[in-house]
Amino acid sequence: MKADKISELTTNRLSIYLRCLNELASEGRKTVSSDILAKRFHLNSAQIRKDLACFGEFGVRGVGYYVENLRDQLTRILGLDHHHRVGIIGAGRLGAALADYYGFTQTNFTVAALFDADPGKIGEQIGEVKVYDVANFSKIAKKESIDVAVIAVPAQFAQPVLELISKAGIKAVMNFAPTPLLAGEDVKLKTIDLTISLESLSYFLAQPALPNGQQK
Amino acid sequence: MKADKISELTTNRLSIYLRCLNELASEGRKTVSSDILAKRFHLNSAQIRKDLACFGEFGVRGVGYYVENLRDQLTRILGLDHHHRVGIIGAGRLGAALADYYGFTQTNFTVAALFDADPGKIGEQIGEVKVYDVANFSKIAKKESIDVAVIAVPAQFAQPVLELISKAGIKAVMNFAPTPLLAGEDVKLKTIDLTISLESLSYFLAQPALPNGQQK
Repeated sequence: MKADKISELTTNRLSIYLRCLNELASEGRKTVSSDILAKRFHLNSAQIRKDLACFGEFGVRGVGYYVENLRDQLTRILGLDHHHRVGIIGAGRLGAALADYYGFTQTNFTVAALFDADPGKIGEQIGEVKVYDVANFSKIAKKESIDVAVIAVPAQFAQPVLELISKAGIKAVMNFAPTPLLAGEDVKLKTIDLTISLESLSYFLAQPALPNGQQK
Repeated sequence: MKADKISELTTNRLSIYLRCLNELASEGRKTVSSDILAKRFHLNSAQIRKDLACFGEFGVRGVGYYVENLRDQLTRILGLDHHHRVGIIGAGRLGAALADYYGFTQTNFTVAALFDADPGKIGEQIGEVKVYDVANFSKIAKKESIDVAVIAVPAQFAQPVLELISKAGIKAVMNFAPTPLLAGEDVKLKTIDLTISLESLSYFLAQPALPNGQQK
């Protein structure tokens, strides 16, 4: 549990480093030190060195990191040299919004299919994505080579949907239903709970004003 | 920076404790120990005691916590005894999805208004929420007592929208645009970056299979 948690904070930071490197590469920069990387993107240079050291020896004494090389290494570590195909269960407003979410198109993810139980939605086209009958999930998931599933159904349907996804052999799931779900041991489940994020804003508003968003 | 980070992890956990207490209260339970709370909801009892100790002495020797009392205290600490009114900028699919996101209705947040620059959308009604001209943001925000803003516009418009929000005197902002934003010192900005979450799933898929979602 703990190792998993640390790992996720680390991989989140790797994602951020990768974006920074992409930006530097697009500017034609060849090398960068952890200090310059930290200064430029408001990161912590010791943290950068520590995070990268978990995965190998990327730095070169007196040079720092080779931008393109480090970018390629991070891409590989994050599994972004493979293309991922996403199936979204729930073709309501949230599912439809996710189907053409701009951020997804920047990465190696393609939304391959939407699924719903509503006969009024099945067969519809949302952007470039077709809505299938969720009863055929397993079949379509196989046909479309879906390896990531997104749960965008109301809370009370989320657990049975997760079981459907697991049965289809999909190992990576992002859940937007505001409810805790019980996943199998071999499934990576990531719940995006927007109410918790809202409550952290509420906490901030309840505090006496302090500069720089700091809290007591 | 560090104090702010720790604080947010703690408030996120307080949000979770509050949900657990709500569930226990709805079952008619009067008292609970940190050990039982931890066991029942898969939490860490030492962490619970440590988190709560930051805010006061809530436990009673031999009894544990009084469920209703602790629930009321956490509600107050999280600022959830105040009602918050949310304005969403961007009435595209994501903004519309957020306007009737089920999770929001469970908390003390009401979506009061949507804003857009598209004349085809201004004046529309999405669920129970009206779409206003973003040019009138400051005026409507005041009239509707909006204290939390949500940015749901494409990345390239997010920074100017944040400046508009800040000018209107709103101090709590949730950003869904997949881009880093520069906020003023007195503004609490929370970016929900779905691509980073997707990339952590991608990382998991790239690892050799290990039980329980653990990673090397």
